[in-house]
Amino acid sequence: MTSRINLQVRMRRFPQGRVDPADFELVEFPVPEPGEGEVLVRNEWLSLDPYMRLRMDPRRSYVEGLRLGDLMPGGTVGVVVASRDPTIPPGARVVGTRMGWQLWSCVPGSALRTIADNGVPLSTALGVCGMPGVTAHYGLFVVGRLRRGETVVVSAASGAVGSVVGQLARIRGARAIGIAGGAAKCRYVVEALGFDDCIDHRSPDFEARLADATPQRVDVQFENVGGTVMDAVLARLNEHARIVLCGLVSEYEQGPASGLRNTRELLVNRATLQAFIVSEHLDYWPGALEELAQWVRSGELRYREDVTEGLENAPAAFASMLQGGNFGKKLVRLDDDPVIEQGVQ
Amino acid sequence: MTSRINLQVRMRRFPQGRVDPADFELVEFPVPEPGEGEVLVRNEWLSLDPYMRLRMDPRRSYVEGLRLGDLMPGGTVGVVVASRDPTIPPGARVVGTRMGWQLWSCVPGSALRTIADNGVPLSTALGVCGMPGVTAHYGLFVVGRLRRGETVVVSAASGAVGSVVGQLARIRGARAIGIAGGAAKCRYVVEALGFDDCIDHRSPDFEARLADATPQRVDVQFENVGGTVMDAVLARLNEHARIVLCGLVSEYEQGPASGLRNTRELLVNRATLQAFIVSEHLDYWPGALEELAQWVRSGELRYREDVTEGLENAPAAFASMLQGGNFGKKLVRLDDDPVIEQGVQ
Repeated sequence: MTSRINLQVRMRRFPQGRVDPADFELVEFPVPEPGEGEVLVRNEWLSLDPYMRLRMDPRRSYVEGLRLGDLMPGGTVGVVVASRDPTIPPGARVVGTRMGWQLWSCVPGSALRTIADNGVPLSTALGVCGMPGVTAHYGLFVVGRLRRGETVVVSAASGAVGSVVGQLARIRGARAIGIAGGAAKCRYVVEALGFDDCIDHRSPDFEARLADATPQRVDVQFENVGGTVMDAVLARLNEHARIVLCGLVSEYEQGPASGLRNTRELLVNRATLQAFIVSEHLDYWPGALEELAQWVRSGELRYREDVTEGLENAPAAFASMLQGGNFGKKLVRLDDDPVIEQGVQ
Repeated sequence: MTSRINLQVRMRRFPQGRVDPADFELVEFPVPEPGEGEVLVRNEWLSLDPYMRLRMDPRRSYVEGLRLGDLMPGGTVGVVVASRDPTIPPGARVVGTRMGWQLWSCVPGSALRTIADNGVPLSTALGVCGMPGVTAHYGLFVVGRLRRGETVVVSAASGAVGSVVGQLARIRGARAIGIAGGAAKCRYVVEALGFDDCIDHRSPDFEARLADATPQRVDVQFENVGGTVMDAVLARLNEHARIVLCGLVSEYEQGPASGLRNTRELLVNRATLQAFIVSEHLDYWPGALEELAQWVRSGELRYREDVTEGLENAPAAFASMLQGGNFGKKLVRLDDDPVIEQGVQ
């Protein structure tokens, strides 16, 4: 039998402020054999998501933080190579959120979802037809309770979640205003994705332009960024507004630079701010995924991917993404054939 | 017929930061005759509440802000002197939230609630058995969804709302931790009101003491204060915590000194923060008022009033209250017989 070599990215040290590629280490070791109920997957795409930065913080996060030397957590899609779960045959395409930054994952079959051939590319199972898409869907419709004719403002509007939020809002018959960093992203959000407007948060008259774009004020604030961007939108809230707190990527690497100053707006507008994590609402996924795939097939829902080649480049790509360096859903394409055949045993 | 002279407190100028008694003016003019459907009330007690400071801000608040020269808004209890509303006879004791800072109020009968003789003092209709009590009841049980065995932390714990919040939590079988300013208030909150603990936010080890008092962390944060006090409680949130945003009195006079820094805690704990105003939930009042009065009669619910004598002293009392100078529900007792009989016609 040949022994195959796995490649993993692990956390070598806690980042100090901004993530540095030197915070990670690349480790090689043999691919394990699946135990009873387990499945061995060769990963084809790795998803990079902002929540991973929270896991690299020694403070309490959604779950326990990573320890030094731990495998970086992450979702992948791949193909089943060996299976001891009778419901998942070899050759199946699967997606899982507990796969990690590695070429091969050996996980319980219950941690996997088989991807039907539903006419959308495999990689979308990590984006528009995966966790980010369902996050947008659940956040906007359940947490945000968006109604026809209302106005939603979403930050990180060209990103994996934000791009879906605005398009779903338009499908629902609402007004969608994006916030993004730089003219190219803003143009894409309006021209390719069909948002009503998109404001560059780096522009000197950001707050005035946001006010111009929200003459009826803001009913749903879908927040991915935090900090001064979040504060600016709070200043535009309508009565009984809903703030969907999905992420605070501007604060993950440095903490809040100035603190949130417009708490008063939450009070006087009788607003509701609600944070959520979509993995706590698994019953919601099948219906949302079906709807998202249908809109992708019909062309109503567009997406953009930002692909980095090779697992060894994931740390630098992740560091860049946290600073807004990506343009669309950030993915790492894993090596086509990284298997190292060795004559051992 | 004799003409009676009314005395009113009006806003003379917008406060700059802290409220100054010179921001108000005392005005005399004849008491009006009630028109069709109106009722003339001689006020006995005026309630002073922090929300009034928001109304004195030229920025948008719950409702339109005051204009210069406007009567200060406020709730009173009093006795009906003349009535052209057939449902409210002269001699009735009434409470209303739209009465204003004045000795006589002429308002539509629909703006009044008749106070039954239910065995609690009349003044409580402005406190524990009135708007502040219902605010505590609705906020804790509906917005906060407090359950038996959970931990609630309430700021301004010796105040009109906070004192009721903690006692209701104990009645519900939850753990009640107060936050108040100074040792005397903290002692009162624990010894007289029966909270499990009360932390002085002025003490140098405030945050450490708060952590000690919340070993199971915080399920419901009932926020009346904002600023650094609010931030400290956010750092103790449990998963799926509810933050009841009732007031931000520390920010009304100066804006946020440092901004809210622990927004991340809302995110990672999947918390819900909800602001509310109890006047938007009028259906809730009768049941809550009945329950509150019953607990007051049985001695399970205690209260403390902080009384200032005379309408002319209301501005200074209000300014002091906003800086934490009151100890218990702030009331102004209006002059026993301020009527000036004049021989004019």
